[in-house]
Amino acid sequence: MAYPVSPLASPFPALPPIAGVTARVVRAGYKDWGRCDLTYVELDEGTSVAGVFTRNLCCSSEVELGRANVRQGKARALVVNAGNSNAFTGYRGREAVEQIMGQVSAHLGCPLEQVFVSSTGVIGVPLPKDKAREGVDKALTAQPCTWEDAANTIATTDTFAKGATASAIVDGKTVTISAIIKGSGMIAPDMATMLGYLFTDAAVEPAFLQECLSAANLRTFSCITVDSDTSTSDTVMAFATGKAGNAPLASFESAGADAFAAAVHDVCRQLAHLVVRDGEGAQKFIAVTVSGAVSDESARKVGLAIANSPLVKTAIAGEDANWGRVVMAVGKAGEPADRDKLSIGFGGTWAAREGLPLADYDEAPVAAHLKGQDISIEVDLGLGDGQATVWTCDLTHGYISINADYRS
Amino acid sequence: MAYPVSPLASPFPALPPIAGVTARVVRAGYKDWGRCDLTYVELDEGTSVAGVFTRNLCCSSEVELGRANVRQGKARALVVNAGNSNAFTGYRGREAVEQIMGQVSAHLGCPLEQVFVSSTGVIGVPLPKDKAREGVDKALTAQPCTWEDAANTIATTDTFAKGATASAIVDGKTVTISAIIKGSGMIAPDMATMLGYLFTDAAVEPAFLQECLSAANLRTFSCITVDSDTSTSDTVMAFATGKAGNAPLASFESAGADAFAAAVHDVCRQLAHLVVRDGEGAQKFIAVTVSGAVSDESARKVGLAIANSPLVKTAIAGEDANWGRVVMAVGKAGEPADRDKLSIGFGGTWAAREGLPLADYDEAPVAAHLKGQDISIEVDLGLGDGQATVWTCDLTHGYISINADYRS
Repeated sequence: MAYPVSPLASPFPALPPIAGVTARVVRAGYKDWGRCDLTYVELDEGTSVAGVFTRNLCCSSEVELGRANVRQGKARALVVNAGNSNAFTGYRGREAVEQIMGQVSAHLGCPLEQVFVSSTGVIGVPLPKDKAREGVDKALTAQPCTWEDAANTIATTDTFAKGATASAIVDGKTVTISAIIKGSGMIAPDMATMLGYLFTDAAVEPAFLQECLSAANLRTFSCITVDSDTSTSDTVMAFATGKAGNAPLASFESAGADAFAAAVHDVCRQLAHLVVRDGEGAQKFIAVTVSGAVSDESARKVGLAIANSPLVKTAIAGEDANWGRVVMAVGKAGEPADRDKLSIGFGGTWAAREGLPLADYDEAPVAAHLKGQDISIEVDLGLGDGQATVWTCDLTHGYISINADYRS
Repeated sequence: MAYPVSPLASPFPALPPIAGVTARVVRAGYKDWGRCDLTYVELDEGTSVAGVFTRNLCCSSEVELGRANVRQGKARALVVNAGNSNAFTGYRGREAVEQIMGQVSAHLGCPLEQVFVSSTGVIGVPLPKDKAREGVDKALTAQPCTWEDAANTIATTDTFAKGATASAIVDGKTVTISAIIKGSGMIAPDMATMLGYLFTDAAVEPAFLQECLSAANLRTFSCITVDSDTSTSDTVMAFATGKAGNAPLASFESAGADAFAAAVHDVCRQLAHLVVRDGEGAQKFIAVTVSGAVSDESARKVGLAIANSPLVKTAIAGEDANWGRVVMAVGKAGEPADRDKLSIGFGGTWAAREGLPLADYDEAPVAAHLKGQDISIEVDLGLGDGQATVWTCDLTHGYISINADYRS
């Protein structure tokens, strides 16, 4: 099933190659389609790895193994299967993942736990071992491909290929990050798992790479939502080959660590925004900024309550400055809030301040803002210094059409 | 704006009159409409009262005052305004409520705190005091009306009038409960607040009436969801006039207390189901039964995670036995769950057992079940004895149309 390209789509950017990283794509035929659906990324020896994984308790074997194996800190390969998430498939699903890990580790002569696997697509169907074996066999020796090929191959119901890049000066060397992601939200486990991968030539100790990725994740991927449904397979990983030749980054004490962490954050934010821009049925990109909370985490939770509210999302779809629905969402978040200190605005114009609708509220600039594609909602809780920005899309007939108007 | 009557609507039942309760309705003109929009219910002296109120932190003055005043245990009158929720209106909103309380208490010669007020409708516009004053004046001396008149008058965007009744033998006397409710979910504060009122002739001490209502609430109103958005004004109250002449119920030790509590539970369940049956855009009524949880409360939370999942709700709208989405919702609930012990069924037929799709799964009875209007989803977590049933409706284009396809 093909959907029209999101009206919020961005063209695929020019992503620099990363020394020590080679991607290849082939068709394993996990579904009855003509496209490539297996991505194999080979990483030079010495590559550091870090990862963040879904907190869904019904996660896939890929996630379980990835979460366990990322702790040893090194990676030699990544395999991504598209068209079958292999989630909720019990021991048979796990066997398929272990087969892939064994096949690749034998080829590279590396420990099993340095091979990482992700899968995305239909749930409850064990990944076919024969197709996986043939696919991996072909992939090990296929021609290298472009980043855009890889971004297209990890995709499922995405309507456009998604990539991002950033660079930083570390220890006098330019280090580069190229990254790809797939997902139409943190949503349907059978069609739109979010999988993201960052590749960098920087030399980074695994623990510090994990620290940078976890910190970035908290302000980027953990701050987006399409429909509040958390996938069973969500995965974001970072791989650092060290080919840039900088003195390895080991902590924020290392020279250039701040610049590298900022580049990781920048790439993660770009990727997170791209996922929202491909949110199922999305017509508008919405940034919800919450300030005046008792803490940053409290601000994030209030922001997510607003961003997950079907009534707020449908109001934005209808270009309706319905701040009453924002009030409702703030109140249901369960975080400290005081109705009589609450202020709400759209596109920089306050509609209500300190618990009261503005007497001289001029709706014209707000109405003009809401007609656009990039919408901002500002909420000031008036309690403290905590702040966060959360990103989402509107809820439209397109979402219902994609998710209800068919039989699986 | 008028919407077509819900396909899940029930006819208004024959509700018996309750001795000591007189309802009257008038047109205050809170909106530019011809219908009655102010309900005044007079209660004889000695009436006990109990109430449960929204936990939304941005609640209305009506809710704040109601929650405080219900503690003294006695009620003489209830006023319900439709067309304006008076929420997020600061001191001006509070003055309007206090004016109504003063006007009615002067008329009845009762303490101010025995007059309860609810309002439902648009948010952020203070209830107009002049219209309220004239409306209440007329209502105090208007002709008594039927329960159905009252049910229609407290409604806003409801597509049908909702009532329920039950009776019990207490102390050799038949006691009767008649109840009305409005709401298309626990949803839009500007259009679909849930307000419910139970009236009984039983003699019940306020504390025990509260105990019965709170217990029933936990298994009924707290187990329904239309779209996860919690209103700023949700209120359910119970009034007991004592006219049945039974020895007052003071605790579960009192003779007939169990029967009375069961009748309260029965009426609350009926009312809760009616709200779901008028859920915005609802085409199907869905019961989610979770068993095998570590506790009843854990089962309820898992049930709500399923019932609030847009992907589960759109799957049911699409008549799609997409148990993978149920797995995802179980996993995101954050409650104890073990993927490999999880079983999922539809309409009494298991699709997956103990973490694996059934090899001999016969989809025919499931497909037939999903074509109906009353859908059941069964989840067995396989961990303990906790169980709960949660009710919701499907998510359809109708929901988007009602909430997005207009400007306020």
